[in-house]
Amino acid sequence: MPGSADGAVRTVGILGGGQLARMLALAGIPWGLRFVFVSPRPDECAFELGRGVVADWASIEANPGLAEEVDVVTWEFENISLRAVQRLQDCVRVFPSTKSLAVKQDRLREKEVFSRLGIPTARFLPLERLEDAVRAAGDLGLPLVVKTRSQGYDGKGQTIVRERAELEALLSGGGHLMAEEFVAFDREISIVAVRTSDGACRFYPVVENIHRDGILRVSRCRPADPRWGEACEYVQRLAEHFAYTGVLAVEFFEKDGRLLANEFAPRVHNTGHWTIEGAETSQFENHLRAVAGWEPGSTEPVAFAAMVNCIGKLPAPQDVARIPGAHLHIYGKAIRPQRKVGHVTVRADSPAALEQSLRQVGKLLGEPVEPAAGAS
Amino acid sequence: MPGSADGAVRTVGILGGGQLARMLALAGIPWGLRFVFVSPRPDECAFELGRGVVADWASIEANPGLAEEVDVVTWEFENISLRAVQRLQDCVRVFPSTKSLAVKQDRLREKEVFSRLGIPTARFLPLERLEDAVRAAGDLGLPLVVKTRSQGYDGKGQTIVRERAELEALLSGGGHLMAEEFVAFDREISIVAVRTSDGACRFYPVVENIHRDGILRVSRCRPADPRWGEACEYVQRLAEHFAYTGVLAVEFFEKDGRLLANEFAPRVHNTGHWTIEGAETSQFENHLRAVAGWEPGSTEPVAFAAMVNCIGKLPAPQDVARIPGAHLHIYGKAIRPQRKVGHVTVRADSPAALEQSLRQVGKLLGEPVEPAAGAS
Repeated sequence: MPGSADGAVRTVGILGGGQLARMLALAGIPWGLRFVFVSPRPDECAFELGRGVVADWASIEANPGLAEEVDVVTWEFENISLRAVQRLQDCVRVFPSTKSLAVKQDRLREKEVFSRLGIPTARFLPLERLEDAVRAAGDLGLPLVVKTRSQGYDGKGQTIVRERAELEALLSGGGHLMAEEFVAFDREISIVAVRTSDGACRFYPVVENIHRDGILRVSRCRPADPRWGEACEYVQRLAEHFAYTGVLAVEFFEKDGRLLANEFAPRVHNTGHWTIEGAETSQFENHLRAVAGWEPGSTEPVAFAAMVNCIGKLPAPQDVARIPGAHLHIYGKAIRPQRKVGHVTVRADSPAALEQSLRQVGKLLGEPVEPAAGAS
Repeated sequence: MPGSADGAVRTVGILGGGQLARMLALAGIPWGLRFVFVSPRPDECAFELGRGVVADWASIEANPGLAEEVDVVTWEFENISLRAVQRLQDCVRVFPSTKSLAVKQDRLREKEVFSRLGIPTARFLPLERLEDAVRAAGDLGLPLVVKTRSQGYDGKGQTIVRERAELEALLSGGGHLMAEEFVAFDREISIVAVRTSDGACRFYPVVENIHRDGILRVSRCRPADPRWGEACEYVQRLAEHFAYTGVLAVEFFEKDGRLLANEFAPRVHNTGHWTIEGAETSQFENHLRAVAGWEPGSTEPVAFAAMVNCIGKLPAPQDVARIPGAHLHIYGKAIRPQRKVGHVTVRADSPAALEQSLRQVGKLLGEPVEPAAGAS
């Protein structure tokens, strides 16, 4: 295999060049790492922090030359070519596992893996033929959630269907879809974990999340959450199933005190951004430490912390600077409606101080920050 | 004045391109800032985080075109051309004050300013003619410290003189030197403060420092240090004298419970590196916030913290990763003896845990970390 003669990781190849790649680089540069970002898009915001390679996935499949100049490859999002990743894996270390990527690229397989591992989910069914519509409406009830099996993110590729006729229309020409029981959940939580190649796992605290229009708005770190143990158990089961190396996140619905796994992310995750300021070691640093073969750092929080996404607009830095404990992260992306273009982390010494600063952030963004739901 | 039409700071010009410039950029990029670094040297480690301009100071004096492409100018070290800074100041906002830079460039004036402001120092005298040697040896006693008045850093440009003959030899051809009483201090401490243009000051905790061969080795953050109030008073007096904007540091000797100001630094400072992980807002972020006209953030520590410099060698990242609470900062500079090429921050929940991790860092670097002296 190519890479450093001594096997040391000095250069990391990242598939994708968005804000997650950018924050990985900001975390890795102090540790002496260099970065090569690969994306089909020429205007990626991570490119200014390393070498940007503009290439479509087919060209990587045809020529995995990237492997020659990096010591390890990872990715920042899952809508990439599995075949390209497999080709790279023949030439260089690639983490996390391609198996996790393959499963993640198919929402039905994702749910099936949860089920097989005994991780509870909402009930689900494949939707391919017209007959499936009848069965889904009968078994899962209406309304139900219809999702494309691939290429979804930030609420894209899913819709709530309230009428059987609507469902039949969706399937009139056949489809590669799935249906899920609609869950009127009490709250959404997620867990972010980091696993090393030798199987050691560390878990960040549970994070309580608020989505709107399918896009994450607010994440609050919830140390000592009553669901933490259960969430850790599930993410660890998944990580072991995948022989996973790096940061892995799982999102859950909580309903009547029960967790239902909604989806996982085989990468650093938006609900872990608070860790940059809020934890002893950020999820970005820990992902890199794991994929480089170095021991991850402590996942303990260093304060009460939360994160608010900036969607489709950015606050002025001088306004964020006035809010106690607030730290601004601008991604350097063109601003478009419904696009994540930055986030604000708030760190505070008490839950009350945290909520006060969060209210100020909400005011600044013109989107009130809703209170946390709390565990049921 | 050029810069953004709305007066907002988006691009920062930094004179110098070393590790301090690099860490300023790493702190400013998340806030949406861009950087232009200017240095006579082509191989500066900050250049990879912005636009590097290779130019000697004379060319900046002749053509301060840099001002056209930045919204504010600051510097990362003081051995730069005062005239170039003054030329830039005619065209663009420059912080901190040129007055602080002018004083800093002359060690005798530096000490005179301390004295004028009622900030105690070791006794000192100018050394220019042979007669001055007689007077210095008589008034200050032997041994004494002889320093060049300009271009010194990291112990360079100073020497301990034990014999009058040696002193006379130094001055045989005249000189631009100064003599200082030799102080057998109990400990060295420093204070880092940030001041805004409108005069508001925030102070980090006192830091206790250990130098060896004139180079800083270890800084320990000392919350609730008994000298904190006095140190704050002195740095504030100095900042007001200079009408200062940005981060300012002052180093002191402590002798029998009394502080003697040794030197100040009109910039971010090595004894403030622990703030990246150890404080609510790092000195780098706060310097940028102040020079951009944004409110600085809290200077409170978030844990027990310390920093160990890597001098002339670097540890392997995987070894640092094994030490609880340790975070590595590699500057990307060529490794040479006695050169600062990185640092390790340690953050811990207790002083005992901090010392345990520091001992491990010392072992790794092959240089035992001495225990703190503590206040007398």
